[in-house]
Order: sequence, then structure tokens, then C-alpha cells
Amino acid sequence: MIVLGIDPGLANLGLGLVDGDIRKARHLHHVCLTTESAWVMPRRLQYIHEEVTRLLAEYQPEAVAIEDQILRRQADVAFKVGQAFGVVQLACAQAGVPIHSYGPMQVKKALVGTGRADKEQVIYMVKASLGVRELFNNHAADALALALTHLAHQPMQAAARLARA
Amino acid sequence: MIVLGIDPGLANLGLGLVDGDIRKARHLHHVCLTTESAWVMPRRLQYIHEEVTRLLAEYQPEAVAIEDQILRRQADVAFKVGQAFGVVQLACAQAGVPIHSYGPMQVKKALVGTGRADKEQVIYMVKASLGVRELFNNHAADALALALTHLAHQPMQAAARLARA
Repeated sequence: MIVLGIDPGLANLGLGLVDGDIRKARHLHHVCLTTESAWVMPRRLQYIHEEVTRLLAEYQPEAVAIEDQILRRQADVAFKVGQAFGVVQLACAQAGVPIHSYGPMQVKKALVGTGRADKEQVIYMVKASLGVRELFNNHAADALALALTHLAHQPMQAAARLARA
Repeated sequence: MIVLGIDPGLANLGLGLVDGDIRKARHLHHVCLTTESAWVMPRRLQYIHEEVTRLLAEYQPEAVAIEDQILRRQADVAFKVGQAFGVVQLACAQAGVPIHSYGPMQVKKALVGTGRADKEQVIYMVKASLGVRELFNNHAADALALALTHLAHQPMQAAARLARA
């Protein structure tokens, strides 16, 4: 199954697309959208909405995996990220793609096997499981990690095929 | 000029449309959109986006006036309101309508003449200046107050017409 992972943010928004199942995942695409603080907010949100909508149309993912945003200590940060998160969810709703959310512990557990793994270990596992060698943007890496986490939460593909038949 | 005032929120979002200038303002429409917490978030955001888009198309306002959202003490509230605020701004950007924001003090000053006015005085002035007698939803009243505040910040209509010519 094709999954789009999203690490939501306003200035930097990571997007990562994978296909297959967790034992044989294939890297399709990754990108980090950046919006400049000099742009007015509606322009920044429109750009994010357009790019997410375009990727959803191009890759037709079955699911979107997004970071659980419950813990945001600063209200101003939460308010900004909330706005970006809002238009991302709208794009998914408009494309009819269900959203699944995973917390940082779930991502670490799915990729490294323990919720106490550090960021470097997660990125190492993203690269290893997707066979991506080049260094890439941390937000895009987080997005790919989320997409892989969703794959790890699926029944094996053969079983899933039977279930859909 | 037609102005759409918006009091953004997730569970309750006030919308109010006025026409004319501050000395002779006309009430066009007001409504409070409510979304149920039982709905999934993408559905709530899609409903808000659709309704705001529909009102923008129907009334073709020249400007949108929105509450300044800087002060949000609780991060979880800021995050929720941020999501609704995001799709509202997106709808405005997509319709090409500029957004102006006003703080509570500016609204009180524009409508009552002093930043120390209380909520009841503001609602009284909204009703008086628009000739609306029936009691209505507080969120819709706030939205109308914002629209009127924007009118109060305009040069008189004749001068504005000259400026546009």
C-alpha cells in the first residue's frame, strides 16, 4: 500500500511517500515544503494546501500518517502549527484519504523496536529500510518514518489482500 | 463595501456580513457554524471550509475582518482554534479576498468609543447600528462587530470611491 507520511509544520513541512509493506518498503518520494515568514499567512497556507493536494493526486496514497500533535507546550507555536495542520487535514478530507496519527513513541517502537530510541537511530532505520543513502532533510525523514510506522501497523500484505477480496 | 466578519473557532464559528459604511451600515446575514466534537477533525474542517467558501461566493465581500488571535493561553485550545483559523484563511486566499485582523480593544473602540467597553455594550451597538432587534448568537454578534470595525477603519465611502476611480 502507498502511504503518505506528513510531519506538519508551518515553516517546514515534511512529506514522505512509501509503498509496499514493512518487510519490503519502497521509497517513492520525499520533500520538505518551506514557507517564508515574509509571506502572509493565507499565502503560506494556500501553498501547503496546494502541494499536499498535488501529491495526493499524483501518488494516490491509501492512507496518510501524521504526527500526533497533542503535546505542544507553547500556545503561539501550537497556534501556528495548528493552522498548517488544518489545511493538511482539509486536503486529505477533500481527497478522501483517511488520516492515522502516531506519537513519537510509536514511531520509535515501530522502526527501532524500543520507544527509548533516539532520533539518529530512527533516521538510520528509515534510510536502511528504504535503501536511501543520501542525507536528507530531517522533516522529510520524520515524514518517511511516519509512513513506515503506518506500514508496521498493517497486517501483512497477503492477509490484507484477502481481507479486501 | 461588503465585509465578512469572522469569529474563528472550531466548535462555534461566527460569521457576519454587513454592507455600506460605518455611518449607514446594513445587515446582510449572520450565522454561527457549529461542528460536533463527535465528528472527526478533517470532517469538521471540511465543513467550515465549505461554508466559508460558499458565503464568500454568494456575497462577494471586498474584505474579511477576523479576530486577532495572538493571545491564546492554553496550547491545546490554540491548536484547535488554529486548525479552524487555517482553513478559514485558506478559503479567503482561494477567493482572493484580503484579510484584516482586529484585536478586542479595536472592536470596542470602533463600536462603543472606548477600549474599556464591556461585551454587552458592544452587542448593544451591533444591534443598534444594524437595526437588528432579535437576540442572536454571541459568536455571530462578534463576527458582525468585526465587520463593523472594518467599516469604521475605512475612509468615508465617497472618498473611497474617488480613490478607486
